[in-house]
Amino acid sequence: MPSQPEITLYWLESTRCIRILWLLNELGLDYTIVPYDKKGSVMAPKELYQHHPLGKAPILELKYDDERGNITLVESGHIINYMLKWFDLEKKFIPVTEEGERSMDYFLHFAEGTMQPPLTYQFYLTRLIPESKQLPESFRENYAKYQEYIDEVYTFPKLEEYSLYLEKLLREQKEKNGGAEKVYFVEDKLTGADLALGFEAATSLFGNPLYRHITDPKRVPLLASWVKYAVFDRPAYKEAVEAEKSIVDGGFKVLKIDQHGH
Amino acid sequence: MPSQPEITLYWLESTRCIRILWLLNELGLDYTIVPYDKKGSVMAPKELYQHHPLGKAPILELKYDDERGNITLVESGHIINYMLKWFDLEKKFIPVTEEGERSMDYFLHFAEGTMQPPLTYQFYLTRLIPESKQLPESFRENYAKYQEYIDEVYTFPKLEEYSLYLEKLLREQKEKNGGAEKVYFVEDKLTGADLALGFEAATSLFGNPLYRHITDPKRVPLLASWVKYAVFDRPAYKEAVEAEKSIVDGGFKVLKIDQHGH
Repeated sequence: MPSQPEITLYWLESTRCIRILWLLNELGLDYTIVPYDKKGSVMAPKELYQHHPLGKAPILELKYDDERGNITLVESGHIINYMLKWFDLEKKFIPVTEEGERSMDYFLHFAEGTMQPPLTYQFYLTRLIPESKQLPESFRENYAKYQEYIDEVYTFPKLEEYSLYLEKLLREQKEKNGGAEKVYFVEDKLTGADLALGFEAATSLFGNPLYRHITDPKRVPLLASWVKYAVFDRPAYKEAVEAEKSIVDGGFKVLKIDQHGH
Repeated sequence: MPSQPEITLYWLESTRCIRILWLLNELGLDYTIVPYDKKGSVMAPKELYQHHPLGKAPILELKYDDERGNITLVESGHIINYMLKWFDLEKKFIPVTEEGERSMDYFLHFAEGTMQPPLTYQFYLTRLIPESKQLPESFRENYAKYQEYIDEVYTFPKLEEYSLYLEKLLREQKEKNGGAEKVYFVEDKLTGADLALGFEAATSLFGNPLYRHITDPKRVPLLASWVKYAVFDRPAYKEAVEAEKSIVDGGFKVLKIDQHGH
């Protein structure tokens, strides 16, 4: 591999950062995590704006020592695309067929464009709760019923539909791959598609008790199984979770991850 | 150009379909529009499920007469990517530099991943209004105040931030391009980035009176100007708007667009 640029991940708790940590670990890259704390707020802290004009994590900075100079990447799907293109030289996580390439690009867009909106709606609905000074107390008292209403007419039906859709896709993959025990969303290996879906499907959907009736392994056996072998049980994912834990436990100090030094 | 596949756009009113119609017109392709009517509902009609398992428009179907067979594309960003790759052989809308390519991929993800969420939140907030049988009348009476609260703490600040960000990017493009009168988001021509942003920035943001204070040309002069020359005034965009109008006025009949026949 040609000389690696200096890689810095500007990390923020409870965001899509786990996806990028996981990716960097799968690629075996060295990197520095500069962590930020939400300090109880829904919104990202002002300090992140010094690294990118939108101030939202994950922000991945690459310092090349050639004419490329410094490159700052944002948007998870785009980061996955870029990093695989430049650092997965053996095509371990890149599809090898034309159809596979198209399929991976689809899933990168599907993750944010379709799967994420109901999750985002639910996230803000439980966090942007009106203050009593702006709305009468009676409104606030009924707010929980309103949340239930939105879950019933929008969040739950959509997430149920998407999880059954993913289950169906995995079933088709199983048939295509001669009944293989472990199947992935594109071709026959973990690709950028799984790395992108890992956040929505594994972390947000399966990781949230609110959606337990949707993620019941009896309803979506292949997806429930995929969440384990393709995400939670991957050593690179486990290391990402450990890194996040040590950031929070260690009081949000800068962390250097050296994949080759240990 | 090699023989074109048969192209069918499954179209639904008030969706991102205008983006794909515009794209097909820019590429000078012939296509058939099979339109669907929401019939007053927020959700897409069941009939769309026969064309794709998620039943959401835009759905673009390509029938090749070679080994590729039928390809069904969904997710706007992915559709733009695919169509430019295979049908923009002269690279009229594709960046020519490495940096430009990276930048276009970023904007394709930014459009749905960052710009769209507050617009989607606002869209559902004004459409998923609880029924009186599920929540007390007093809650419904105060719902408008709640909408104002969400606008104040989330929708407006985010959309303001994003429009100022886009303005800043256009200013940088202007400087890079020697003060050119017309600038675009990537390199010096209309690319997939503008085609992707056209929906959020032009249709959803500038097209909605609710956001008039955010889209004031005094605040975002370059963006307001871009919305005109890069979107609304493009002949290909105007033809897309006309096609949509004739679908609705004509009672949702199938429409064949023959770019070479007239």
